Amino acid sequence: MADAISFSRGAPSVDIVDIEGLRAAANRAFDNDPAGTTAYGTAVGYVPLRKFLAEKHGVTPEHVVVTNGSMQADAFLFDELVSPGTQVVVEKPSYDRTLLGLKERGAEITAIPLEDDGIDVAALRAALEGGLRPAFAHIIPNYQNPGGCSLSLAKRQELVALAEQYDFLIFEDDPYREIRFRGELLPAMYELAPERVVFACSFSKTVAPGVRTGYLVGSPDLIAKIVRRATNTYIAPDMLAQSVVFELTQDAPRFEKALANVNDKLRERSDLLGEALKQHLPEAKFVQPDGGYFLWAELPSNYDVDAAAAAMADYDVAFVKGSDFVLDESGKSSLRLAYSAVRADQVDEGVQRLAACLNAHKS
Amino acid sequence: MADAISFSRGAPSVDIVDIEGLRAAANRAFDNDPAGTTAYGTAVGYVPLRKFLAEKHGVTPEHVVVTNGSMQADAFLFDELVSPGTQVVVEKPSYDRTLLGLKERGAEITAIPLEDDGIDVAALRAALEGGLRPAFAHIIPNYQNPGGCSLSLAKRQELVALAEQYDFLIFEDDPYREIRFRGELLPAMYELAPERVVFACSFSKTVAPGVRTGYLVGSPDLIAKIVRRATNTYIAPDMLAQSVVFELTQDAPRFEKALANVNDKLRERSDLLGEALKQHLPEAKFVQPDGGYFLWAELPSNYDVDAAAAAMADYDVAFVKGSDFVLDESGKSSLRLAYSAVRADQVDEGVQRLAACLNAHKS
Repeated sequence: MADAISFSRGAPSVDIVDIEGLRAAANRAFDNDPAGTTAYGTAVGYVPLRKFLAEKHGVTPEHVVVTNGSMQADAFLFDELVSPGTQVVVEKPSYDRTLLGLKERGAEITAIPLEDDGIDVAALRAALEGGLRPAFAHIIPNYQNPGGCSLSLAKRQELVALAEQYDFLIFEDDPYREIRFRGELLPAMYELAPERVVFACSFSKTVAPGVRTGYLVGSPDLIAKIVRRATNTYIAPDMLAQSVVFELTQDAPRFEKALANVNDKLRERSDLLGEALKQHLPEAKFVQPDGGYFLWAELPSNYDVDAAAAAMADYDVAFVKGSDFVLDESGKSSLRLAYSAVRADQVDEGVQRLAACLNAHKS
Repeated sequence: MADAISFSRGAPSVDIVDIEGLRAAANRAFDNDPAGTTAYGTAVGYVPLRKFLAEKHGVTPEHVVVTNGSMQADAFLFDELVSPGTQVVVEKPSYDRTLLGLKERGAEITAIPLEDDGIDVAALRAALEGGLRPAFAHIIPNYQNPGGCSLSLAKRQELVALAEQYDFLIFEDDPYREIRFRGELLPAMYELAPERVVFACSFSKTVAPGVRTGYLVGSPDLIAKIVRRATNTYIAPDMLAQSVVFELTQDAPRFEKALANVNDKLRERSDLLGEALKQHLPEAKFVQPDGGYFLWAELPSNYDVDAAAAAMADYDVAFVKGSDFVLDESGKSSLRLAYSAVRADQVDEGVQRLAACLNAHKS
């Protein structure tokens, strides 16, 4: 049989990475700043990239720290904010590695369900009125992982108002914001209420995950604490990679064109995935994504997705079972499909295999 | 006055970094493995580099994990091995960031003095006979930081025998092993007793610190635990940087030539530093380094090096006071001089400034 078709990993296929743009940027990095590209640097990140990102977000550099991927930034942030018993709000479902990072640090996690327009703010309000006092709420506002949906403007405004009223921080985890197929980009909660929000983003989705370059934007006080942790962990993040990313951003026309290509290809893959699901797995319910890497499919409760996942290798297909993204017993009839790494000509075949796998685990 | 001359940071000056070699390696990385260079990869590190390092050390890849610099590897290792109250042996003096990492995790640290041929093994044996039961001993065997001295072969053999007898691990922290000015490279303790040793090394000193590429070699069981921690912290280290480092190692003649150039330049700087100290600061006692980045100077007790360090900016010179490398009240008349970043034509002037600074803080 053919090689496995993987809807599993949220990573771009190499055909949509601008290899020649990266090569040119690497050469410019060695031309323009050989010392900065090869020296230790400091834990704030490559200084010109930090400055570029600060300007992009309309803040001073003291508000920004650039790390080896945004997950490393999350780890520093959790180390700073979470001790055993710390109350934290997450979306349900949410990114499995975030849940793991919080659990490992002993957080007391309250998972608030996701609706088609983002977290159920009324349910969060009720929990807060009932006495919940979180240190922070982790929110993936755009093209949520794994849910695929986005937080409406009204809910963004309500969330920052709640954060103000109940004195908690919003951790706005926003790596997918620039992977947009249609519609307007809504304002970040960081823009609405910078003093209540710490914002995380990444170049993994827009450039390539192998450059491991992510960043946080937040209060200078919090950022300074993260920088101290980063210094004591690794002295400085990768200057070579960050210098290459910086040079890439400086050729704005090429950067924009490469990003538009990523978005075109992922829009096509996403649309084909939706069509193939309607055809081959008509019982699946899903919101057609407006951006990002993921589609979240819910099946009737007679599907045993956990069992199907355990057998997926037999069908030469891969996906992630929904139960990985929740902390309770729900999610057993749901799954996450990443279309980012599946070429257009493979989508239909992949969904046929997926349907065969799932239908074989249906009571 | 002129710019400050810094004997402070253990980093190479850019004139001894092979920028053109790095550029060529980056271009080969994009030619030879565009997918691997830009994809997430996994926490074991860039697979071809891991394999290369395993072969270099005569082990299978399961014994190796490649990280974002070796300090990140240390952090994972300490997270794995140290909880509050864990007994750990260190050298006195030792690398300040190691001491900090151990203290932050609540280790109970026993510092054993360094002699000209490495740690005082007799003193360690006496401590073990007296009941000390360390989880591990942290040893920098070659061109110690900050001491500049190296561990003799006899002491290496005695140490691994003690590790066997008293059932502890040796953390052999060996980033300077290839920065050798004279003499033979002694066998690593990892080679003498692989089951008793976890070995750490880095490309920061041989290639450039900005590539942030370090690694551990140890038992597959321990390495698997580190890989799990790394996965949960950052998914994978920087593939771009590790792919570039791998390509650099594959042009062995160029790599060897670049390393020989680093060693030639550092030997010259080190020798000039020794001469200048004899001339301008004749009271300083030191061992002339046979390799590495550092010279450790001890002054008579009427010098107040802490006070001199606080005033060094006034003299346009920089160094690190000895008290940063010990946990007790010793080290107040000692200092660490890094010659790695001071060009040959600056050494004498730098030592004159240093002497002026120190002599002004002498009772």
